Parts: sequence; C-alpha cells; structure tokens
Amino acid sequence: MTVSQIDEEVAKLLELKVQLGGDEGRHQFTLKTAKGTRDYNPKQMAIREKVFNTIISCFKRHGAENIDTPVFELKETLTGKYGEDSKLIYDLKDQGGELLSLRYDLTVPFARYLAMNKVTNIKRYHIAKVYRRDNPAMTRGRYREFYQCDFDIAGQYDPMIPDAECLKIVHEILSELELGDFRIKVNDRRILDGMFAVCGVPDDKFRTICSTVDKLDKMSWEDVRSEMVKEKGLSEEAADQIGQYVSLQGGMDLAERLLQDAKMSQSKQACAGLTDMKQLFSYLQLFQVTDKVVFDLSLARGLDYYTGVIYEAILTQTGPVPKAEEGVSVGSVAGGGRYDGLVGMFDPKGRKVPCVGVSIGIERVFSIMEQKAEASAEKVRTTETQVMVASAQKNLLEERLRLTAELWNAGIKAEVMYKKNPKLLSQLQHCEDSGIPLVAILGEQELKDGVVKLRTVHSREEIDVSRAKLVEEIKRRTSDV
Amino acid sequence: MTVSQIDEEVAKLLELKVQLGGDEGRHQFTLKTAKGTRDYNPKQMAIREKVFNTIISCFKRHGAENIDTPVFELKETLTGKYGEDSKLIYDLKDQGGELLSLRYDLTVPFARYLAMNKVTNIKRYHIAKVYRRDNPAMTRGRYREFYQCDFDIAGQYDPMIPDAECLKIVHEILSELELGDFRIKVNDRRILDGMFAVCGVPDDKFRTICSTVDKLDKMSWEDVRSEMVKEKGLSEEAADQIGQYVSLQGGMDLAERLLQDAKMSQSKQACAGLTDMKQLFSYLQLFQVTDKVVFDLSLARGLDYYTGVIYEAILTQTGPVPKAEEGVSVGSVAGGGRYDGLVGMFDPKGRKVPCVGVSIGIERVFSIMEQKAEASAEKVRTTETQVMVASAQKNLLEERLRLTAELWNAGIKAEVMYKKNPKLLSQLQHCEDSGIPLVAILGEQELKDGVVKLRTVHSREEIDVSRAKLVEEIKRRTSDV
Repeated sequence: MTVSQIDEEVAKLLELKVQLGGDEGRHQFTLKTAKGTRDYNPKQMAIREKVFNTIISCFKRHGAENIDTPVFELKETLTGKYGEDSKLIYDLKDQGGELLSLRYDLTVPFARYLAMNKVTNIKRYHIAKVYRRDNPAMTRGRYREFYQCDFDIAGQYDPMIPDAECLKIVHEILSELELGDFRIKVNDRRILDGMFAVCGVPDDKFRTICSTVDKLDKMSWEDVRSEMVKEKGLSEEAADQIGQYVSLQGGMDLAERLLQDAKMSQSKQACAGLTDMKQLFSYLQLFQVTDKVVFDLSLARGLDYYTGVIYEAILTQTGPVPKAEEGVSVGSVAGGGRYDGLVGMFDPKGRKVPCVGVSIGIERVFSIMEQKAEASAEKVRTTETQVMVASAQKNLLEERLRLTAELWNAGIKAEVMYKKNPKLLSQLQHCEDSGIPLVAILGEQELKDGVVKLRTVHSREEIDVSRAKLVEEIKRRTSDV
Repeated sequence: MTVSQIDEEVAKLLELKVQLGGDEGRHQFTLKTAKGTRDYNPKQMAIREKVFNTIISCFKRHGAENIDTPVFELKETLTGKYGEDSKLIYDLKDQGGELLSLRYDLTVPFARYLAMNKVTNIKRYHIAKVYRRDNPAMTRGRYREFYQCDFDIAGQYDPMIPDAECLKIVHEILSELELGDFRIKVNDRRILDGMFAVCGVPDDKFRTICSTVDKLDKMSWEDVRSEMVKEKGLSEEAADQIGQYVSLQGGMDLAERLLQDAKMSQSKQACAGLTDMKQLFSYLQLFQVTDKVVFDLSLARGLDYYTGVIYEAILTQTGPVPKAEEGVSVGSVAGGGRYDGLVGMFDPKGRKVPCVGVSIGIERVFSIMEQKAEASAEKVRTTETQVMVASAQKNLLEERLRLTAELWNAGIKAEVMYKKNPKLLSQLQHCEDSGIPLVAILGEQELKDGVVKLRTVHSREEIDVSRAKLVEEIKRRTSDV
C-alpha cells in the first residue's frame, strides 16, 4: 500500500464512522474547562491587568519593542529544542495540511522569528500564553495553559552589558510588584561545564549531571550526590569535588577567588565564564542591584539551549504562599540566561544571533497578588465606572438614557440600569457592590430645575449640580480614580 | 462494520503510514509560520496597541468587566454550535485524556463560562484570538488565527435597552477609530422568520433560506433568488414575495409601516420583532446614533444561535481598503445580535440567560490602520523611549550606565548602547531611526562640571543641564509624548 492509498482508505472509513454516528453516542455532556486550564473571572483579570501594567511599564522604560507570534508553530520548529520535555508538547490533530504544535515557550518562536525575518538585533518583549501537557497540581498554581512574560535582547554587543540589563529589569519588576524580599542567583554554563571538566565528569555526562545539580534547590546534597553516583554512574571522587564547588556562594570576590583556584583555573571555559562574571558584577554595581544578586555555583537551570550566564530569582519570604511540595522550585519567580546558538539552529546558513533574556514567572506572581488581595480589606474593583445614572421615580428611563449618553460622549465612565423602573435602593446597592463612587440622581424636580443630584456613595452626601457643570464636577471628583 | 472496528482499522493504517515515512519524507525544513497565521512585528504591534486602547477605553466607559477563557475547550463544548462551519474547527491530537478543540469564537466559551459559574448577569468584554481552518486569502486580511473583540451583556432586563447600548458602542468605536463613514444595519431574527412564514417558506427551510438571504451583501438578488428556487427548492412565488421585503430599508417609520402590512401583521413573531424594533429606535434616538443605523430586512447573519435583534456595521467609504472579492462581505467591521438560548444549551437544567453582544472585526480594522500608517508621512514609533544616554568620547561606558540607571530609577524611559565605545553618530542615528526625541550626552567636561548636554534630536539644539535637574527637564520636555 502507498501513503496516498492509505489516506484514501482512512478518509473512506472516517466517512462511514460519521454516518454511523461517530463518537457521539458514548459520552455525556460535561461542563468544565479542559484539564489544567482555568477561566479568569473579572476580579482575577483586574489583578492580572495591574501586574501586566507594572511589567510592561518596566519593559517600555528599557526601550523594548513588542512582538507577537501565532499560538501554534509547525511541529518541526519545536522538534529537538526541549530535550526530554518534548513529550509535554501539545500537537494538533492532522486534519490535512501541516503538522502543528502549540508553542511550549516564547523563546523558540522568538528565535524562529529572528531567523525567518533576518533580524540581527532587537530588544523585545512578548507576553502570551504557552502550553505544556504537564501533570498539573493546580493548588500549587501550575497549569497546562499559562502566561509567559519574556524580555530578550538579541544582537552582537560588548560582553555582559545586555546581560546586566536583564538582571536590572528583574530587580525593578520584583521591587515594584512588592512581593517581599527576593534574591537573584547567577551562574554561567561555561563555569558549570569547566567545573565538571576539572572535577573529572566525562564529557558525555555534562548535561545529565547538570540536570541533577539543577535539583539542588529542592533536594539535599546527599540525595543529589546519590543520584549522580548511583543513577548516573559518576565516580564518588568526582561527585565530592562537585559538592565542594556547588556549596559556594558570593559576589565578585568569589569569581576572583575561583580564577585563582588551582583546579578551576585549568579550564579555559571556566576562566572565560569567571572573567565575564566579574564584568557582570561591575555593571550590576553601577546599576545598584548587587544587594540582591548572588553568584551561586549550584544554579544550573534545566534548558539545554543556554550557553553563558544563567539566572533565577526567588522570593525569600514567601509570606502567604503555600509551602513548596516535591518537585516545585520554592518561590522561583523569574529566570533566564544567554542562548547564543538557538537562532542559528533556524537559520538556513547557520548564522548566529547572540541572545540573552528573562522570563517572568507571572502565574506565580498572580497567585501571590490574588492571595494578597484576599487578605486585604480593600476591595478589588472590576470596573472603572465613575458614576451611576439613577432615579428615584418612575418613568424616567428615557431621561436616564439621555443623560448617560451625554456622559459617555464626554468621556465619563457611566452605567445605567437596564430597567424601566428600578428601585433607588437597588441602584445604590449596585454602586456599593462594584465600588462606583458617584451617583447622578434624576427626578422630576431636578429636570425642572436643570440640575442633577450628585451623590457621593461612601459619605451619602448629596448636592445639586447644574446640568452644564456635571461633567466637569464628575471629572474633578474622580480625577484620582 | 462497527465504529470500534473502524477505529481499529484506521489505527492500523496510520501505523503503517508512519512506517512508510508518513508525510515526513516529502518536505524539508521550512522556516515559516503555520498556514494562515502571521507574526506581528513591532510596528504592527504599535498599531494594534493603539486600536486596542481605543476599544478597551470604550468598553470600560460602559462599565464592562473583563474575563478570559482558555484557548481550547472540550471538543463537545463546541459541538453543535456552528452548523456547517464546524468543519473549520481545529482539533487537538488525542494524546491521551480529553478531546480538545481550539475555540472558534468567544461567544460559545462565554456561554459555557456563564453556565459553569452560574453567572446570571454580567457585562463583560473579552479580547482574544480565535481559530478557524478557513481557506485563507491573506491579501484580503483573512487569517486562520485572528483576534476577536467581544462585548456582551447577559441578564434578564427590560427589552432593547442593552441591545441599544451595544449599537451605541459600535457607533462610538467606529467613530473614534476614524475609519471613515459607516452604517449599521439592523434586523431581527423574529422579523425574518415571520417574513419567511407569511411568504410561504416551509418551517424546515427557514434556516437554509436565511443563509441564502445572508448572501445578499455580496450576490445580486437574481442569484439569491435562483439559489432559493433551484438549489433549495423554494417556490418561485415565495421567493418573489421575499424579494419584495428584503429590498426594504428604513428606520422607525419602516417598522411602523410593516406592523400595518396586511401580510406581515399576520405573524405574531414578526409583530413582536417589529414592536421591539420601534422601541430600539426610540432608544437609539436618545443615544443620538440614528444617523448611522438602518433597519434593513436583507440582513440575516450566518450564525444559528441568534434569536432576536441582529446587526452588522459596514464601512461605506473603504478608502485604501482593497475591493471586495467573492465571498468577502464588503467592509464589515462589526456584528452581533441577541442570543437568548445559547447559555441554556450548557446549563444542566436548561436555565436560560438572555444575552446580547457585539464583536468588533478587529483584523480588518488593523489592516485599514496599517494602510493609513503606510500612507501617512508620520512614522509609527515602536518604542516609547524618551532619552538616549550617549557619549562622544571613549571610556565612558561606566558613566553612561550609571546615568541610565539613575534615569530608569526616576521612571524615565531611557536607552543606552551596549558598546564600550560607540560612535556618537551611530548613537544619534539610532535616535533618528526610532524617534527618540532627546539625547543626554556625557563627556569628560560635562562630568567635571556636573552637567549633561541635553540634545533635542529634531532641532539639534544642545543645552547643558545640571545633573540634579536632568530628570525634571526630561519629564518637562516629553510630557506630551
């Protein structure tokens, strides 16, 4: 049988299946969202908007442009980029035509975008949802559909300057979001690889040993050591040497010390990484962010494509955030690094575009902000309505609509009840519930006098305002809203 | 053959296909986005952001809340909602677990959301991408992935008040976007059904005749008549009677006249629709939007779920927009209607939540705005950077970084080149290219004097500003940016 004969045969059978009623008969109707996904209600959206505004402002302050890419890519675009995690990619059904997959992150689509459009330098941000068929534990805030919030700098520049800006951005965003104290761990893939080499790890075990080291934030050294030796076949001696290095933390001083280290200094790679680390810290000092940044040799990060500096920000006082469970990195809220080879994988001629970037772990930030909002006495407003156009009397619908349109046309955010004769109490109640600060009340007398009774919801004060001055008065009173 | 036997057979054949190399052998590595999709570059994103801001401001002015739903739904959620167009739904591959499909619009997920969360009234907007495996003709601005921009009012209210607000919103948005003159056609499914009944269309042909009438905006009456008679088997007499009605256009007067029409008045449904149409126009008069609204009996709209008022906005002077080709509704930029039954399809007890809404055809708006931007002399800025920190001399990288961080910390949008010793000319060129209005130039002398040379890019004027006053001066000069 040839492929096209098979296609024909399949089509015939599926046609027959449809005639037989297909899969329909079997299942009942379920009212839910897909596993691992959720709706955002207006309250969650209000919080989300606030968080996005803070982050986008920061990206714009740093001169970033914005791009967007499709939610799905050709399957082959994602192939070979995520190592073991490729099994978590959502594929689309083959409905004839191209084989497609939902994007797994924003970095690979970014690299594809650069190669396809021959962009050799850009500073861009991209905020969008990505998809992973992970086993979700939703109480821990992990989903199969979640936002990523990426900032990347692509281009050939002098070493460590864009890298330092990425860390400055993480520092700014985490400070402005007021999530509590944080720390940014920094390391370099070249330092890790050099360290593995001088400790006697065979070349072909670098990546797998690196994955094991990556678990140090949630496993004890003893367990990590045991995984290296028993599962991955590393010698005990090599493991112990690694153990000495990965316990080291410091700043520029540590980089200097390791450059003098008898063993470490034997690795060219490590020396290159350490020299750059010193340079990075000198820029971070100028940016005044060294208070939160730690050079930490245990930081490894999972993804294969990093080639230089890597970093990860964690919250050190998690406050109302649930304790970490097995397999969850405690309080990690941002991460990234340098990936100089990825764009070249897409370029037909292999031309490289060096890149460095950071991804904000926005879902975690959302859930912290949600918990803070829950704990706070202040109510989250889900609309921005400034005034409710109301009436205490019957048969004034037309007058209410007329006034509401006047306000809309003047740029005032206004609501009116969709009832012919709503009760005043229910109109006021709606204002209380949704935090509308003002009510413009119309009655026969007010219409005769050419005024509107303007009521302040929280104080219940009422004053008559002439119709001609109403817009101005509402603007004045809500200028801080 | 049974369904399960077919499934087995199909699985075997597909397995064989994979062994034969499947579709893989045919293609090489391709650097492209999926068919019918596109990336948005920074310029397109800048335009998109502007359009969204206008639309979102309008939605907020009307007191709308914001929600979001996942990009995919259970397949069964979408089943039976789109009639013939169901074939355009993207399904996800069965990778074990639930059968999922990408959303086809935002209305069905909204109805699912309401039923699932037992929400009985809400005014919400939702802006997100939807997916249709349509045959895209990208020159005409049709894509397989595109934005929808929906505003809906759910709840049991007095007739036509929310419906009128939806039309007011369309009027506001199209006016503010300055797309040129427009018209909003209005009709009612009950009037259409009543008309079909009194013209002698058999009950079971209502929907299919309705689809044919829907083509009147792109086909002549002769062709529509011929489709009704020859393809759909309608009597010539019935078709001609329909022809007389669907040529009618007017306002409240037309609704009144049809209420007196000997034939039309025999249909209770039509009378209910016509009475509501009169009511609608009276509210539209209060909202001062009747100048653009036309009661047009030829408007039918494709979707099955509408139950009352329907509407569609078209641009009447398309300007630089490409001429319509076959199958494309000329200049349609917004549409919607009342759908009182959809939520009930999801509620286990069939409880109804009446809804009315509007969807802005944002992709069309984007392409018009893009063409306008192309035609305009004014450059579209893709960043908001206020100042570039530059230097004419060597070895001042550290000073540049220090000043840049000072500006960032003061909330100024600032950029600095990632080079140790960039040329002044290339720094100024970057400002010209990306529209940065100011340059803060540092040199040995300026550092000694505690000043910065502030250069206005367009006039090339330079003045010395003391370091202490720099932030204030930049803010003053860019306050209108």
